[in-house]
Amino acid sequence: MSSPVDKMLRQRVSWLADSGPEDDIAISSRIRLARNVSGFPFPINASRQKLASLFEKVKLAVECSNCIKNPLMIRIDEIPKIDSQILLERRLISREMLAEKACPAVIFSEDESHSVMINEEDHLRIQAMRPGLQLSEVWAAADEMEKGLSQNLKFCFSPELGFLTSCPTNVGTGLRASVMLHLPALSMAGQMNAVLQAIGKLGLAARGIFGEGTENLGSLYQISNQSTLGEAESRIIERLESVVRQIISHEKNTRKILFEKKREFLLNNVGRAYGILRHSYIISSQEALNSLSSLRLGVDLGMFSSVDIHKVNELFLLVQPAHLQKYASKELDSAERDVFRAKIIREKLQSQGN
Amino acid sequence: MSSPVDKMLRQRVSWLADSGPEDDIAISSRIRLARNVSGFPFPINASRQKLASLFEKVKLAVECSNCIKNPLMIRIDEIPKIDSQILLERRLISREMLAEKACPAVIFSEDESHSVMINEEDHLRIQAMRPGLQLSEVWAAADEMEKGLSQNLKFCFSPELGFLTSCPTNVGTGLRASVMLHLPALSMAGQMNAVLQAIGKLGLAARGIFGEGTENLGSLYQISNQSTLGEAESRIIERLESVVRQIISHEKNTRKILFEKKREFLLNNVGRAYGILRHSYIISSQEALNSLSSLRLGVDLGMFSSVDIHKVNELFLLVQPAHLQKYASKELDSAERDVFRAKIIREKLQSQGN
Repeated sequence: MSSPVDKMLRQRVSWLADSGPEDDIAISSRIRLARNVSGFPFPINASRQKLASLFEKVKLAVECSNCIKNPLMIRIDEIPKIDSQILLERRLISREMLAEKACPAVIFSEDESHSVMINEEDHLRIQAMRPGLQLSEVWAAADEMEKGLSQNLKFCFSPELGFLTSCPTNVGTGLRASVMLHLPALSMAGQMNAVLQAIGKLGLAARGIFGEGTENLGSLYQISNQSTLGEAESRIIERLESVVRQIISHEKNTRKILFEKKREFLLNNVGRAYGILRHSYIISSQEALNSLSSLRLGVDLGMFSSVDIHKVNELFLLVQPAHLQKYASKELDSAERDVFRAKIIREKLQSQGN
Repeated sequence: MSSPVDKMLRQRVSWLADSGPEDDIAISSRIRLARNVSGFPFPINASRQKLASLFEKVKLAVECSNCIKNPLMIRIDEIPKIDSQILLERRLISREMLAEKACPAVIFSEDESHSVMINEEDHLRIQAMRPGLQLSEVWAAADEMEKGLSQNLKFCFSPELGFLTSCPTNVGTGLRASVMLHLPALSMAGQMNAVLQAIGKLGLAARGIFGEGTENLGSLYQISNQSTLGEAESRIIERLESVVRQIISHEKNTRKILFEKKREFLLNNVGRAYGILRHSYIISSQEALNSLSSLRLGVDLGMFSSVDIHKVNELFLLVQPAHLQKYASKELDSAERDVFRAKIIREKLQSQGN
């Protein structure tokens, strides 16, 4: 019998596989809303029993409101470790939820575009994702989910402060809006440090998407708001979108300059990345992510007409440890993963016919 | 009007393009005989005029004996520098002959298998080359050339010492027999140091083929006799051949072991080399030679069924600076060569259809 996670793996991830505005550079947009339910202690203070009953209450609220279609409901402490790793790699749960916590759970739609993490730092983390730059659309989706859930859940709210959260940095709107950007040209041109500094000065945060200290990996950056207090959601989102559009324009200009003025340097970087992905038999996660990043740029520049950019997006997911092992249907140690990763990438790119 | 060197470049190099025994590992066999002509001072002491008249005398002797068919006769000081570089890269002249010397010249057959260098360290360096391991055959060819020339040239000979030469290390037979070996598996397995030490102890020499200090480049080694005195030619050649056969067998075993026990390591090395050759846009001479070496091993292991091993042999020649510039029909600086080298390799491998 297949687990819910196995079922999920057979489905399409809409935010990776579908097209969206500016999706040559903006891979996906995400809104996350932190909420806590009145009458329950915050997760850090609550008993296992309380949190389990909270999960049941949220399940009911999801079902009643129908705010997530055909929802998969998974308690993290009831599934194999590899399955929870898969959920983490797909950004459906947070790294903190893998630790020994009371009753962490997640409820999400088939296409993974709508989800609610339960018993993370806060009771609920309502999350909506879409491909490309679609911050208004994901905000509308998250807001609608929240409204639906609030019909059956009373959220902790203070008229002065707004929504109350475990960590003071989330108080107010409880909103984190973020866009995942692919910035290979700015990386190649050595301009990312300047860009990251500017982002910091504008009150936004930039993080690598594969966890702490992975800023350079795959040239993938998640740009998000830092402050959640004293501003309307729409204003936070507008500010973020404005900065993201500037970064996208900067990346596009840099691609153009590289293509016109440092053509061989650019083609060499992209060509070698493709050659290695297509023909290596051992490849580390780091080299794979960085090579996929260069390949993705090459696809966008028209160098590989038969490679679909969404397939490259999916490879970013597939080369990660848990996905690899799930794909192999067995446990693999680090050296075995490097061999299997190379095999999968070779096969996937070969099937793209280049 | 095209120069003799341009004409040569349009012809087939038999020792690279043809098949020979053991030519998966033994690329070519070569015999070189040092001879000096009585009545002429050794080159180091002779006037330009004397050496010029010696060249005329040798030309006549070649023509009368017909020991080199349709010979090309080239005075190095009369051709452009790039053309003499081409002759050097094709091993038809020595590096010393590029320096300011009196009347250095070379006479060679269309297929480059038979040649005579003139006014190098000695008056004559008679040279025969063949593909694969064919020491007896090249010895017979060189011996026949020498016999032919001796009908019209009296060689300096001492009944006690044998043939007399400028450098005492060549006195006696004046013979240097050598085999160019491709030893990528021994290199990968880290066994070349041990092999080189053993070769030294057996009184043989091993050199990189691209000049001093290039031992590791392309895993190509020239194994040759050191001593020329006190032994018959046939005995010198037998000893060399016996050692060469042992090295070939050692390389074959190592390939087998790598293929069976360290399969991914081997495939990864070969696959990456192919990927880089096939898709890079900037490649140094060193990286090209080392990658071609791995590719050549891969072709021998059957990984690239549509790539012809002799085409890879020819690429070893083509990626060198003078050949590249001749191919481009213009002077190229080092950075331009790296770009053009990558282009040529991409094109040649693409036309091989892999």
